Amino acid sequence: MNGADSLCDTLLANDVDVCFANPGTSEMHFVAALDRKPRMRCVLGLFEGVVTGAADGYARMADKPAATLLHLGPGLGNGLANLHNAKRARTPMVNVVGDHATYHVQYDAPLTSDVEGVARPMSHWVRRTLTAGELAADAAEAVRVARQAPGNIATLILPADAAWGELPADTPAPPVASPAAAPSTSRDAVRAAAQTIRAGQGAALMLGGMALREPALTVAGRIARATGVRLLSPTSNRRTERGVNRTPVTRVPYPVDQAVALLKDVRQLILVGASAPVAFFAYPGKPSLLAPQDQAPIVLATPEQDLLQALEWLADELGIAATAPVLLPSAAPADMPRAGALTGTAVNIITARLLPENAIVCDESVTQGREFPAISATSAPHDWLQLTGGAIGIGLPLATGAAVACPDRKVITLQADGSGMYTVQALWTQARENLDCLTIVLANRSYATLHGEMKNVGVQEPGRNAKRMLDLQEPSLDWVSLAAGMGVEAVRVDTVEAFTKAVQAGLARKGPFLIEALI
Amino acid sequence: MNGADSLCDTLLANDVDVCFANPGTSEMHFVAALDRKPRMRCVLGLFEGVVTGAADGYARMADKPAATLLHLGPGLGNGLANLHNAKRARTPMVNVVGDHATYHVQYDAPLTSDVEGVARPMSHWVRRTLTAGELAADAAEAVRVARQAPGNIATLILPADAAWGELPADTPAPPVASPAAAPSTSRDAVRAAAQTIRAGQGAALMLGGMALREPALTVAGRIARATGVRLLSPTSNRRTERGVNRTPVTRVPYPVDQAVALLKDVRQLILVGASAPVAFFAYPGKPSLLAPQDQAPIVLATPEQDLLQALEWLADELGIAATAPVLLPSAAPADMPRAGALTGTAVNIITARLLPENAIVCDESVTQGREFPAISATSAPHDWLQLTGGAIGIGLPLATGAAVACPDRKVITLQADGSGMYTVQALWTQARENLDCLTIVLANRSYATLHGEMKNVGVQEPGRNAKRMLDLQEPSLDWVSLAAGMGVEAVRVDTVEAFTKAVQAGLARKGPFLIEALI
Repeated sequence: MNGADSLCDTLLANDVDVCFANPGTSEMHFVAALDRKPRMRCVLGLFEGVVTGAADGYARMADKPAATLLHLGPGLGNGLANLHNAKRARTPMVNVVGDHATYHVQYDAPLTSDVEGVARPMSHWVRRTLTAGELAADAAEAVRVARQAPGNIATLILPADAAWGELPADTPAPPVASPAAAPSTSRDAVRAAAQTIRAGQGAALMLGGMALREPALTVAGRIARATGVRLLSPTSNRRTERGVNRTPVTRVPYPVDQAVALLKDVRQLILVGASAPVAFFAYPGKPSLLAPQDQAPIVLATPEQDLLQALEWLADELGIAATAPVLLPSAAPADMPRAGALTGTAVNIITARLLPENAIVCDESVTQGREFPAISATSAPHDWLQLTGGAIGIGLPLATGAAVACPDRKVITLQADGSGMYTVQALWTQARENLDCLTIVLANRSYATLHGEMKNVGVQEPGRNAKRMLDLQEPSLDWVSLAAGMGVEAVRVDTVEAFTKAVQAGLARKGPFLIEALI
Repeated sequence: MNGADSLCDTLLANDVDVCFANPGTSEMHFVAALDRKPRMRCVLGLFEGVVTGAADGYARMADKPAATLLHLGPGLGNGLANLHNAKRARTPMVNVVGDHATYHVQYDAPLTSDVEGVARPMSHWVRRTLTAGELAADAAEAVRVARQAPGNIATLILPADAAWGELPADTPAPPVASPAAAPSTSRDAVRAAAQTIRAGQGAALMLGGMALREPALTVAGRIARATGVRLLSPTSNRRTERGVNRTPVTRVPYPVDQAVALLKDVRQLILVGASAPVAFFAYPGKPSLLAPQDQAPIVLATPEQDLLQALEWLADELGIAATAPVLLPSAAPADMPRAGALTGTAVNIITARLLPENAIVCDESVTQGREFPAISATSAPHDWLQLTGGAIGIGLPLATGAAVACPDRKVITLQADGSGMYTVQALWTQARENLDCLTIVLANRSYATLHGEMKNVGVQEPGRNAKRMLDLQEPSLDWVSLAAGMGVEAVRVDTVEAFTKAVQAGLARKGPFLIEALI
């Protein structure tokens, strides 16, 4: 038994049994150890951004961390953008990053880099284990930190000689470290929130994290029905349970002007595991803080606290425990488009209406999908996973990980074409693992968001240089060929009829399928 | 005129006129500025690893830096692996990384991260400009640092409000900052090296950087012919001028045992812009330092010093200035394979023999291309660009940038399939810019290096978990479809005849073409 075995055993003992991996030479002893533990499910990504994005999607659905296996500083670097998204989502994750043997670092071999330096900006916790004997304790601590509410990115750096170092036969069983329960909010915070709600006009509950999941969502719905307080959520969220017969929550829209308009009557924000809403980007002459600033927000509970308990206490304080929840009635669906050229709106409506019950929607639709949240509010109940950190290239990996976590649920990805290219390699993993992923590529063949932003900075007619940086034409991407190149069947459609049929076909089958929707 | 204009003007005034870009919202004012300067050639990459890898390839061939344009911490993160390679190559590069407006950072919007923290591990120089007025001086300093021999990675962080800040009409012309000339080595170092060479047995010149380029290479060849000193080079080099009628240099091979065998008789290393050779990775029971350790190496010149001058001084000191150089005779080509199933060896031989004069070879062939350096020693004169930092995923971007720098030269990429997938998006840029790039994918459908490394760690028969992490089958990648998806014509071959014809066809045309060589 060596250090790598000890690390692997400790992960398994702490209920981490999926490892998304892109290993290299320095990780070979860990790979050999994984090979001796068939209980660990190893899922290969052909690029590290796939690995970290999939681990994010997995943990959002499994509510426990996966491990990732990455190759020194550059391999971690490749995974950094989706680690950023996961860090913003507060997704639990345990990264195992191989590094040179401790004694080899001094020679500055070509792959040497400051691994801690690369890890820190996108990790909550970073540790380098120096010997095989310390790996079990460090790995258990990594899992404990990762699982601590609301979730953390724990990065463990594994020198090759710590992995290959032999351990004595009487090495004890791996430690099991339970994360502490999320702490309670204070009674004072609950009283302050209740007082504000009772005072009437302009109070709004800003719900984040576990407050967007059952059963907390239902408690929030009861409070809203009884008091009239508005229910809001941040623009981007780790996972929202929504659809008919669930408590509807109004999401702060991405465009600054729309967000300011939505929030203009909010006099008092009450934060429940969320922050006060801020603009995604700054613009000259526009505010960074989106809500009126007359009153500082009240914090009912921080993201680290028990949000369900905080909402229950608030309902008790308000004396409304018995009130029925606010559920969304089964609205008559908006008119389904029946024929004609395909548009972004048609894609959003058709997808929302055909969404099967219990679907998982991974949303990286960016510009073309901005209508989807409103349209799908009355879809069948589903989980909605968003791009939380603004680092594009998470849609396909997120779906990959969610499908590994939930093999019995349909995963539908709304994928913008520009961002889809960042981690297109995820399609191969979907094919290899035969994951039940239906990908809808909204192919507008441009960075449409940036065209809008160019107008925002006063450029009405982009010239050659700008066009060449914002358009994805010359040549157009052919997503059917790209998917075929990675073993995923695909179809291209440009009419409402063909798109509807393609979605129905994709839903009827089990396994990966891609629709390139030309809009 | 705003800060972005000032930045762009300063880059142009300092002869940086190519910008590899993947911009986002926070860079829109810079994009608008680029749009006003048609002299700046903007080349879009659909992923940041393409952008930084292309900037590396460009600078290796142009001998001057390109700019890159990247989007906040995650965009920089995506480019980090190829920045690592460029840093190891000592390639000059100026990265412009957009960030939030200075006043917006405090609100911790979703894309906020520690950009300096992400930049530092893979940059030689990092600066954040706070106001529009400082941009010109900072940009000039970035170019000066980047160009300082042997080359540096300079990363300039550009807050959105520094870009959009207006400048007065009487803003002076942009500063032009020349890098200082590379300093000379010392006469003592030259005398010590000469004395060692004169002493006879076991001396070897280890040539790196500009010492692998004309005219330094020829001076080294004269010294070798006159004295018998061996000429060696590191395993991985930024750019080597080689082929018939050039001075041959023996490269330290990648496998540790082979490297130790090659170096076993070296008693005294004389370093000329290179380090003493170290193992790429540590292995139990194998040495980290590859050459015998009886004598500390003599430093004739550090990478920062003038290597041509150092070699000329050494030749003078040895009194051999008039001797003819060691040139490689036009060797009779090894037998060209004529028929049969395609093998890695056949790919290497056929490519080496058909290599056109003045070709640029970008080599990320990894396992299957290990024979190429020896076989191509007698190829037509060519430049050979290697993976310098061990971070796979540079081949296709490197070729892209080299082709932008040298539109009149054929760029041939030897690309392993596993590493090719990391930055496969580069093919789209090759298509869009109609770059004269012939890509040969050595498709062995596995991480073959890692199969070898598994044996090294004692696993003779990998089980399910290991196989699933080392094999690229189930499904096999289809490179013809992948290329077609990005607008690059491609062909798949599995015989010697078909491969030979495909290479001839690829060489005869102008523009991107890909050959999937099943081996």
